[in-house]
Amino acid sequence: MKTLKIPEATIIRLSVYSRYLTQLDKKGIVNISSGEIAEGVGGSPAQVRKDLAYFGEFGTRGVGYNVRDLNQHIIRILGLNKGWKVVIVGAGNLGSALTQYKGFRERGFEVVAVFDNDVNKIGLTLNGVPIFPITKLREVVKEQEARIGIIAVPSKYAQDVADHLVESGVKAILNFAPSVISVPENVELRNVDLAVNLEILTFNLALKKNYD
Amino acid sequence: MKTLKIPEATIIRLSVYSRYLTQLDKKGIVNISSGEIAEGVGGSPAQVRKDLAYFGEFGTRGVGYNVRDLNQHIIRILGLNKGWKVVIVGAGNLGSALTQYKGFRERGFEVVAVFDNDVNKIGLTLNGVPIFPITKLREVVKEQEARIGIIAVPSKYAQDVADHLVESGVKAILNFAPSVISVPENVELRNVDLAVNLEILTFNLALKKNYD
Repeated sequence: MKTLKIPEATIIRLSVYSRYLTQLDKKGIVNISSGEIAEGVGGSPAQVRKDLAYFGEFGTRGVGYNVRDLNQHIIRILGLNKGWKVVIVGAGNLGSALTQYKGFRERGFEVVAVFDNDVNKIGLTLNGVPIFPITKLREVVKEQEARIGIIAVPSKYAQDVADHLVESGVKAILNFAPSVISVPENVELRNVDLAVNLEILTFNLALKKNYD
Repeated sequence: MKTLKIPEATIIRLSVYSRYLTQLDKKGIVNISSGEIAEGVGGSPAQVRKDLAYFGEFGTRGVGYNVRDLNQHIIRILGLNKGWKVVIVGAGNLGSALTQYKGFRERGFEVVAVFDNDVNKIGLTLNGVPIFPITKLREVVKEQEARIGIIAVPSKYAQDVADHLVESGVKAILNFAPSVISVPENVELRNVDLAVNLEILTFNLALKKNYD
């Protein structure tokens, strides 16, 4: 694999291509051109070729790409060939929604445990996933070999939860709390701000003056 | 405003700059350089200047940017100077979490109503936001002049809900259902796939082989 820096936008598009290829594979489609991928996902053929070129040579001139091979390759690039175990901290509405979110499992992510400090929730399950007290975090992370932690608690607890996840041994954290948290350099961190999605919509509405 | 195509990544960064400037403004900081903005958000000064240059000339050589002026300008670019009313369809875990998500209100989005077809939920409120039957969608959207609709229903209902939102007069739709939906060209659509965020983390873990 080349070591040059891959733009995040490319990684996001690879993820989109992979979903599309999965759909095509299910329909029994064997070959596809970069133009067809571009059309299917709403991009340009040149962009598709450029994104894939970061990771070496794919496809056969005049035939295009083998759908399944290309998809398996992208899945490997995205690190999804290995299944990932995920723990979620916070069993409120957001934590509950994330625990039951079908889109995670479809892409190889298994939520194995949820943690909360509400005694009324501890011992219950969400879609079969057990809710543990937060004091069990380290034990469960080790036992399950969970490598990813999701923070779904109020902002004021987010840093404490992040520290606790890092101590427990997770290697990557997805933070849904709208607050800035810090983690050691060897831990991957991504902050999800759901409002950004609305801002992209309103930017486009304002541009077109299409809101009255 | 220039009419050239603005990359989505730029819009997302503008949104990030704006949050950072809002924090600084609250702390009473008056001026900032592109280097300080870059440091605060984890980018490069050249990127900050390039992003802002899409929208004209800002700042004074040697002084930098006025924090409040720049933020207000970005807020206007993002269409956030006008408050936006939002309706959410689906009062399950995800819809409930989104209704109570503080990050929306902080950025000028007001959730005015939630819709569901569960008779046990209709008539209740979520954080003060009323839950209406889906049959009231058109009436409430018109009355409230809501322009944005959020889809938080299972995939199989997503297209029906989208059609219904469009008929009711919303101009932009944020879709959390993991399914492909289509809307007329004059309606803005954005699909949120929460799993992509995990895939960016695992891509980075796989790259560093940092997962054991």
